[in-house]
Amino acid sequence: MSDTSDESEAASDSRDEIMDATYRALCEHGHADLTMQHIADEAGKSTALLHYHFDTKEELLAAFIDHLITEFESTVAPDENDSATERLREFLDLWVLEPEEDDRTALHLALLELRSRGPFNETYREELARSDEVLRRIVVEIIRDGIEQGVFRDVEPEGTARLIVATLDGARTRQITLDDPAYSQRVRKQLEDQLVEGLLVSDDATRR
Amino acid sequence: MSDTSDESEAASDSRDEIMDATYRALCEHGHADLTMQHIADEAGKSTALLHYHFDTKEELLAAFIDHLITEFESTVAPDENDSATERLREFLDLWVLEPEEDDRTALHLALLELRSRGPFNETYREELARSDEVLRRIVVEIIRDGIEQGVFRDVEPEGTARLIVATLDGARTRQITLDDPAYSQRVRKQLEDQLVEGLLVSDDATRR
Repeated sequence: MSDTSDESEAASDSRDEIMDATYRALCEHGHADLTMQHIADEAGKSTALLHYHFDTKEELLAAFIDHLITEFESTVAPDENDSATERLREFLDLWVLEPEEDDRTALHLALLELRSRGPFNETYREELARSDEVLRRIVVEIIRDGIEQGVFRDVEPEGTARLIVATLDGARTRQITLDDPAYSQRVRKQLEDQLVEGLLVSDDATRR
Repeated sequence: MSDTSDESEAASDSRDEIMDATYRALCEHGHADLTMQHIADEAGKSTALLHYHFDTKEELLAAFIDHLITEFESTVAPDENDSATERLREFLDLWVLEPEEDDRTALHLALLELRSRGPFNETYREELARSDEVLRRIVVEIIRDGIEQGVFRDVEPEGTARLIVATLDGARTRQITLDDPAYSQRVRKQLEDQLVEGLLVSDDATRR
């Protein structure tokens, strides 16, 4: 029993190390030029070990997107003490890239390259679609909770969530591709002023 | 005199043909795999002629972005009879990719790849920044006109324009990368319901 458990723990540690190495390798090389060797080098492991876990680079990268989604989900897990308004604002904050976040900027540039391959790569596309669903579901839940709490007006949660996610995505894409560090921050503020404020039932709600 | 004029007309025709060929070559091959030979083949010209006009592929593609911006600007040139509300709605419509527009979808996927190279390529970055400015300026002008006409509330035109452009960009990116044909259309409707309607001074204004 304990052997099996140790083995599966070791495999899980090894996968985590590969995910961390993939992050660094993507930041360093971008998506188009990335090889299994780059990831193996970053992990201090052999490409044989990588191939033990993942048949192809595409499978490894799909697992990496899955890993990012899982991390993001655990970051936004609701705190029972937070109101829907706070949770929505925290969600918006998570998307904003600060000017000094060079690694996250590099990662999202690499992901943009990867995303442009989505329609040509079934494995990527499935993970990207899942990522989109997870993001929208998080916002839908916050909006539903806000409506139930009487904080938000009775808007259509699905459509509103889609609008918010698209806006944050576009803001980040423009920030990283134009190398304009404040772009996301400015759009985030505008989104809050013109959309989140519009969701609120009354001025009282903003002070909850 | 007439010789010079003929020559410059010929050069201009030739450039237009190269731009059309670049469009087709990008749709066919994407950005990462694109070569001058692909563009020359599409144009039915020699790579020598391409190099007579453009020193490098990057210069040609920067000129292509410039060409797209110019075309977009002429498409949205205001009709004096249109109200600001109509012009804003027309602007939103221009961004929506219809499901059957395979060529435009392929083009925007290639442009997304190109954009992910922006921070590493000065020539691209300058054109992308200009494109962003032009798009935002168009929306700023529509919003200013709307405020002057008494149709729109007294919002901050720059911030509102940035929000709208980011939203449309993100919606299109998600549509093309997720291969979800209705994504832009859904976000466009939501943007209209939750933002454009919010700009309007009163219900009367929507009927102008």
